[in-house]
Amino acid sequence: MPSRRDIRPLDALVSPRFTQISTYARLPYERDLTDIDVAFVGMPFDDGTTFRSGARMGPAAVRENSRLLRPYNMFVDVEPYATFNVVDYGDVDIIPGSFDRTAESISHTLGPILDNGTIPLICGGDHSITLPALREMRRVHGPVNLIHFDSHFDFWDAYWGQKYTHGTWLRRALEENLLGHVAQAGIRGPQFSPEDLQFPRDHNITLQTIAEFHMHGVKAVMSTILDAIPANEPLYVSWDIDVVDPAFAMATGTPEVGGLTSWDAMECIRQLQGHRLVGIDIVEVAPPYDAPGATTSLLAANLFYEALSVMAKNTDHGIHAFRGR
Amino acid sequence: MPSRRDIRPLDALVSPRFTQISTYARLPYERDLTDIDVAFVGMPFDDGTTFRSGARMGPAAVRENSRLLRPYNMFVDVEPYATFNVVDYGDVDIIPGSFDRTAESISHTLGPILDNGTIPLICGGDHSITLPALREMRRVHGPVNLIHFDSHFDFWDAYWGQKYTHGTWLRRALEENLLGHVAQAGIRGPQFSPEDLQFPRDHNITLQTIAEFHMHGVKAVMSTILDAIPANEPLYVSWDIDVVDPAFAMATGTPEVGGLTSWDAMECIRQLQGHRLVGIDIVEVAPPYDAPGATTSLLAANLFYEALSVMAKNTDHGIHAFRGR
Amino acid sequence: MPSRRDIRPLDALVSPRFTQISTYARLPYERDLTDIDVAFVGMPFDDGTTFRSGARMGPAAVRENSRLLRPYNMFVDVEPYATFNVVDYGDVDIIPGSFDRTAESISHTLGPILDNGTIPLICGGDHSITLPALREMRRVHGPVNLIHFDSHFDFWDAYWGQKYTHGTWLRRALEENLLGHVAQAGIRGPQFSPEDLQFPRDHNITLQTIAEFHMHGVKAVMSTILDAIPANEPLYVSWDIDVVDPAFAMATGTPEVGGLTSWDAMECIRQLQGHRLVGIDIVEVAPPYDAPGATTSLLAANLFYEALSVMAKNTDHGIHAFRGR
Amino acid sequence: MPSRRDIRPLDALVSPRFTQISTYARLPYERDLTDIDVAFVGMPFDDGTTFRSGARMGPAAVRENSRLLRPYNMFVDVEPYATFNVVDYGDVDIIPGSFDRTAESISHTLGPILDNGTIPLICGGDHSITLPALREMRRVHGPVNLIHFDSHFDFWDAYWGQKYTHGTWLRRALEENLLGHVAQAGIRGPQFSPEDLQFPRDHNITLQTIAEFHMHGVKAVMSTILDAIPANEPLYVSWDIDVVDPAFAMATGTPEVGGLTSWDAMECIRQLQGHRLVGIDIVEVAPPYDAPGATTSLLAANLFYEALSVMAKNTDHGIHAFRGR
Amino acid sequence: MPSRRDIRPLDALVSPRFTQISTYARLPYERDLTDIDVAFVGMPFDDGTTFRSGARMGPAAVRENSRLLRPYNMFVDVEPYATFNVVDYGDVDIIPGSFDRTAESISHTLGPILDNGTIPLICGGDHSITLPALREMRRVHGPVNLIHFDSHFDFWDAYWGQKYTHGTWLRRALEENLLGHVAQAGIRGPQFSPEDLQFPRDHNITLQTIAEFHMHGVKAVMSTILDAIPANEPLYVSWDIDVVDPAFAMATGTPEVGGLTSWDAMECIRQLQGHRLVGIDIVEVAPPYDAPGATTSLLAANLFYEALSVMAKNTDHGIHAFRGR
Amino acid sequence: MPSRRDIRPLDALVSPRFTQISTYARLPYERDLTDIDVAFVGMPFDDGTTFRSGARMGPAAVRENSRLLRPYNMFVDVEPYATFNVVDYGDVDIIPGSFDRTAESISHTLGPILDNGTIPLICGGDHSITLPALREMRRVHGPVNLIHFDSHFDFWDAYWGQKYTHGTWLRRALEENLLGHVAQAGIRGPQFSPEDLQFPRDHNITLQTIAEFHMHGVKAVMSTILDAIPANEPLYVSWDIDVVDPAFAMATGTPEVGGLTSWDAMECIRQLQGHRLVGIDIVEVAPPYDAPGATTSLLAANLFYEALSVMAKNTDHGIHAFRGR
Repeated sequence: MPSRRDIRPLDALVSPRFTQISTYARLPYERDLTDIDVAFVGMPFDDGTTFRSGARMGPAAVRENSRLLRPYNMFVDVEPYATFNVVDYGDVDIIPGSFDRTAESISHTLGPILDNGTIPLICGGDHSITLPALREMRRVHGPVNLIHFDSHFDFWDAYWGQKYTHGTWLRRALEENLLGHVAQAGIRGPQFSPEDLQFPRDHNITLQTIAEFHMHGVKAVMSTILDAIPANEPLYVSWDIDVVDPAFAMATGTPEVGGLTSWDAMECIRQLQGHRLVGIDIVEVAPPYDAPGATTSLLAANLFYEALSVMAKNTDHGIHAFRGR
Repeated sequence: MPSRRDIRPLDALVSPRFTQISTYARLPYERDLTDIDVAFVGMPFDDGTTFRSGARMGPAAVRENSRLLRPYNMFVDVEPYATFNVVDYGDVDIIPGSFDRTAESISHTLGPILDNGTIPLICGGDHSITLPALREMRRVHGPVNLIHFDSHFDFWDAYWGQKYTHGTWLRRALEENLLGHVAQAGIRGPQFSPEDLQFPRDHNITLQTIAEFHMHGVKAVMSTILDAIPANEPLYVSWDIDVVDPAFAMATGTPEVGGLTSWDAMECIRQLQGHRLVGIDIVEVAPPYDAPGATTSLLAANLFYEALSVMAKNTDHGIHAFRGR
Repeated sequence: MPSRRDIRPLDALVSPRFTQISTYARLPYERDLTDIDVAFVGMPFDDGTTFRSGARMGPAAVRENSRLLRPYNMFVDVEPYATFNVVDYGDVDIIPGSFDRTAESISHTLGPILDNGTIPLICGGDHSITLPALREMRRVHGPVNLIHFDSHFDFWDAYWGQKYTHGTWLRRALEENLLGHVAQAGIRGPQFSPEDLQFPRDHNITLQTIAEFHMHGVKAVMSTILDAIPANEPLYVSWDIDVVDPAFAMATGTPEVGGLTSWDAMECIRQLQGHRLVGIDIVEVAPPYDAPGATTSLLAANLFYEALSVMAKNTDHGIHAFRGR
Repeated sequence: MPSRRDIRPLDALVSPRFTQISTYARLPYERDLTDIDVAFVGMPFDDGTTFRSGARMGPAAVRENSRLLRPYNMFVDVEPYATFNVVDYGDVDIIPGSFDRTAESISHTLGPILDNGTIPLICGGDHSITLPALREMRRVHGPVNLIHFDSHFDFWDAYWGQKYTHGTWLRRALEENLLGHVAQAGIRGPQFSPEDLQFPRDHNITLQTIAEFHMHGVKAVMSTILDAIPANEPLYVSWDIDVVDPAFAMATGTPEVGGLTSWDAMECIRQLQGHRLVGIDIVEVAPPYDAPGATTSLLAANLFYEALSVMAKNTDHGIHAFRGR
Repeated sequence: MPSRRDIRPLDALVSPRFTQISTYARLPYERDLTDIDVAFVGMPFDDGTTFRSGARMGPAAVRENSRLLRPYNMFVDVEPYATFNVVDYGDVDIIPGSFDRTAESISHTLGPILDNGTIPLICGGDHSITLPALREMRRVHGPVNLIHFDSHFDFWDAYWGQKYTHGTWLRRALEENLLGHVAQAGIRGPQFSPEDLQFPRDHNITLQTIAEFHMHGVKAVMSTILDAIPANEPLYVSWDIDVVDPAFAMATGTPEVGGLTSWDAMECIRQLQGHRLVGIDIVEVAPPYDAPGATTSLLAANLFYEALSVMAKNTDHGIHAFRGR
Repeated sequence: MPSRRDIRPLDALVSPRFTQISTYARLPYERDLTDIDVAFVGMPFDDGTTFRSGARMGPAAVRENSRLLRPYNMFVDVEPYATFNVVDYGDVDIIPGSFDRTAESISHTLGPILDNGTIPLICGGDHSITLPALREMRRVHGPVNLIHFDSHFDFWDAYWGQKYTHGTWLRRALEENLLGHVAQAGIRGPQFSPEDLQFPRDHNITLQTIAEFHMHGVKAVMSTILDAIPANEPLYVSWDIDVVDPAFAMATGTPEVGGLTSWDAMECIRQLQGHRLVGIDIVEVAPPYDAPGATTSLLAANLFYEALSVMAKNTDHGIHAFRGR
């Protein structure tokens, strides 16, 4: 365990919430990771998007709308900053127009974070950024188990001949042997063909469509998913904000009606307690399409906070997310 | 059955979803109905509106936000374009300022569509357009059974002495003997007087207010409604988007809080499988009041797709929507 | 009982809903309270806000979006204007920049309303206005029981040394002995520390967080709350609109994801039937952050209408909200 | 002259501008016109619109955004409320869906106002309302001279066979002999055909397109116009807000780029000093399309104030707008 | 000259402007270019953007907001559809994520259009699409003269090592010898260094910054520019919408304050009469950032119309835009 | 002069403009002022506002929309970061609800900045923050000359008895003898009474209303103003964003139509070259009312940059803004 540096968010009882520089949860912006347990890192790339662009503005908006987060999570019953040193690491210098170079840049930035034993809270950008993130996860942890919350399968082979997009990363990740067990949750919307449903079967993916959520509820769905994932193996969560219904998260590039509520979303993450969560990304927040009060970015900020809380709670219970720590 | 012309939406793997001319579901714009089974047709009239105008912009917005629809409905398990030739027929040339002349124009356009044996997906416009649509339905099918999803009763006698508005069409339709059995679902909001509740009783209308949905769920409500409607009789659905809660469908002229979710709405339509659905209208989408990401139009586009899927599934099971086909 | 003056909203069948001066529910604007049972009164103060300002625009927006309200509540089965003379009293002349002087102005305006035996429907403004409202309630009724719907506790001691803010009013009210039994419902979001949960215990507050709503439903939660409050004692409801989820009520100053639906909110109020409701405030509607269709203000307008309906229903059943009436 | 009742707007130093009921310029809402010189009256009809609807919301929005108006116009150097008793008369009960009945209702309401010797500030609604307004003007004053500020000619014969729309009122007014001399100012945008330019010549209309404004400036244009209009004859101004560029007035139904600035617009009206201005309408403000800060409604509120100032200044100089006064 | 096919926009006196499928100026969507003189073609690529993405939505929005265009331009005094057969050709199937493949696709689509002797009205997308357009222009016409309206120079060598972006296309075009004489107009905003001003001098570019517009006016600036360009040589105009001030055109990716008005913009294009205009692009319209009334798209639609009018006027005067026609 | 630390904004050719933490002009966030010449400092207080609140969000929005600023100002011909070390100092910890305590906090923060010889770029918040800023200016420089750009006089004695608001700070500053010569520029909108015009005369204020700008242009107006201010005396500029027309700067609390363009605004500041500018504030940017593309914040960011450029240019010419430097 790193020593406690007692890093705290700006005190809202001193500096009102709307004041001072915008960082995630009003934590310090810090590039020195000595003793840092968890780091928020933005990956504002959106050239992998097949419909509405705008996810490049995600990290800035999530930071701005994380100003309301306070330090005690009463539903998880944990004070994450008492357990962890957490900072905002800033963004990866992504390369608009080039997925390949962006992927290199992500590796270049995320690699040392992971090597340092710091757990990343990764803020997209579009879903294509998950592939380079998983490459680094694989390098450090070996194949990671994955829970993929999304309204889309994201396992198509190519769009317009492009192999690296926000709709193909999962197939690439499987081809590159980056993953252990995979679960997909919240899938809905029209598909290309009935064959789409065969892919999960062929790849031993635990599939829980949105219909399972509506029929059985979050706890049952998460139980089905988590039963297939050993708790002590490294688990990565990739969360596409479009798994949430547009009423609760309208600001996204390929919205699908009929999704999760905001409470459902938080509950999904809370159910991960006890599992060795080594990283999470939340992607596809496209702020130009958000409500006047920025409700989507607000939700994303809260989902990161729930994940951070689960990580802290786990650590408090002796479940460490990293080797050697 | 018409022969298969194998009409398909533009391929999103060739032309990205945000490219090319805006038609419903990226289907061809086509006025020649030879062998066409289903046609999307807009009726952008909004002079029947009693509060916020803007529904005249509905068809354009629903088209624009139908770009994400893909060809396989996994929850209904059907590929509608494999069963049906579907096109976008464009709009009726409505006459702003005159309901009477608009009603004539609707008859003039919709009549030949129905006579051709083509099932219409009718996009309003305000709810007053349902009356001329029902007149043509009556002419072709005889009195049709009607399920009316709405937060309002729409059976008042007149507004300011006007007999043809979005709040009076149902009384006119009853007076004109256009209808068989009628069900109303989702009614809520304050009413004019307790006598309003007497009208459904007097007219043998199956009434399921929103309270029934919240207490018993979609399946129970739909079962109650459908039990009263013989499956082999022609069924018309008139869907006022304001039956959905403003959180999910804010862009409408007379919004009422406390409504259906987007998933509820889709489920309502999916429950129609097995019933001889001869047409549907979705009305009262008022795009000037929509969220930045156009979530209401997106939902309407999906509800049409669910109806199309039900129609296709029915046809696959030998339930044909039209006489002689 | 005052004699019936038969005050009615403007008739929408004569003056369309979008016409004429904007008052609550299209009721008369009236400062003479002779025989007036219920009065809508705005308190547009927002200097007590700790994050986004804008609640000063609340009363104007709630009035504008109350145009759709009709005179019969079918779920409560009551015609409030048949029971009550109701008017829009206008706003308190609040003093931007001074809570103290605003509190005096509120007392100066609200006092005579209460002394007249008129029940107030109080529209904020931020939550700090509840303190002076409760002072007048205390003066007239003695300590009132309070149900506080909110996502926040609002019992902190001070913000930046300021003792009178939208987050401290409840502590002040307790210190000033204004209250009988207190219940808090809908609390959620991150908190400052675990000690926050001790305060309700120390003050014998019935606490029902949002988790209770999601687990047990509105009826069970309200039953728990109301069981602790004698029905014949004066009950005041303070409703922070942020208890509702931002999907249904985005326009508020300190939004928290994961809240009530609009139907839940209406149901909470309907459950108050049979309790001696002597006043209600709905606060923290911040219109600059509302959806294009003003859904938050629309919801607030409806919640006031539900409260009015409960009051009328109670009166019809002999439960009078005021001494001597 | 009526006796002075010393009617004043609400004092912003007592009631902050954002408080209290929304009326034009925070003047009293009053239907008794005894001694009233000027009355703001809304005509929220928008069924005459050929493109975007929404002008029915104009009067409510103009009222709400007139809260900033103060009582001294320093550029005209006049205190209008020291000269005039001014009130907000509310709206005409227009009839959605029927121009004919709306025209009757306008006559029914406006007639007595004019007969009372009260000058109307008429707030649309779409431009079709000008025709019934001019009928009453003609009845009271005889044919009035007209300055028509607009980006469109509005003299087409019919749209879709409809003779009474926002694009045909001027031809009808000419056919009905309601007008004396006519000037048109600000015309721009593409036209139907070169013949459109023949109509003004055939009808002796003083035509100043927007090109004249851009080349010669407001003073020169207004001088050209006013030279053709005897100062002592009754003059009516019909102001379509779309004569202003969408940058300054985006909220309108048929916007045309390349228009006046807001200062130009105010200057146009100020140049009317010395002319016997007997009424003005400002039409086509369509609030659903306005900027977040409602800049179009704000401009319209100010243009009415400039007209009121000119009327007051004229009166101060002995130029009375009405017979017998 | 092609024979006249008498292609006309949909008649607004039959089909109201808000009805029917959305194409540029309500012209037919047509891929057969036989006898077609001018074609609107969209190039919705936005991966070359360095700040806000969203220009991929440009063509759809420009089409939707071109519904108000009528067939006679009174300021140019021309009826373009009487001279030309004009159609909407749809969009190039661009490839998100790959400039190289998109450039190929543009060549593949634009080449045959130019070879057919059809003048393109090219709607971006971001400014990177101008490079492949110029390549085809060069292939057909030889080096073309270029007037580049923009607030940015766009001649930087690379961004983040990327050579093909919306800020580098002009340097690439010069390196590839695609251009004859070049003029830049409207440049403003902060620059990278004083050396930026040396580049135009080194490349014999006629530079007219925005300061020249504000000091001397549109006519003088355009005269300076056009004096350096022989009228009989092919001239291409590349118009970045951000040359217009954000007040008039807010929806763009890299806005700079202090720009042209909408009237200035139209005047710039009208001044091109007499010059052999062989094509125009209008780029960088980013609809997610537009005003509620879509004023930026509306302006772009009008600027295309002005260019079309100039082309038609030229043709009427014997100035043909293409060799051999 | 401080030694050069060569502080530069983040390089946009390395980190794309939309990436990384949001600070003014992408400069470092820094609280150590050693060798710092200029510091951006936010004062996000908005309780002094008399109409629309929201200016508390100003500094965050101005920072976010300053991402496009590049390092060379070609119209002033200066590279400010080559002359100056500039940083973002963050915000003053203002106290919502208390002007007095906020004023103390401003003094507490701004005092050491000034004592350090650092020139502040002060970002409001509402205009009331100018008073404490001027107090510190007075303490360090003696009475400063003031140019006050605004559409309002701001010299009223009190609002609702409150002496410290955004409309009274100038009278307080005069009473407290903080000022030397005062000029007011851009005043417009209706006033309270003709006496308002007497105040400038009585206090020897150079008054240039907006009419002077429209009649004579920026250069003439600024020449009139600057002729009365000795160039070598310390000059403070207080810029209320509402002096700009709402078309260019809609996001403000008390907008007045008929104002400056964005180019005019920049030109006003550029005319200050040669004058010893010791500080500037830009106030009243209220982001909740901004356009979708945040054009008002963008303008404010640019106006600060113009002021910074003028300061750097002056320094390059030996005009130092501070004593002893």
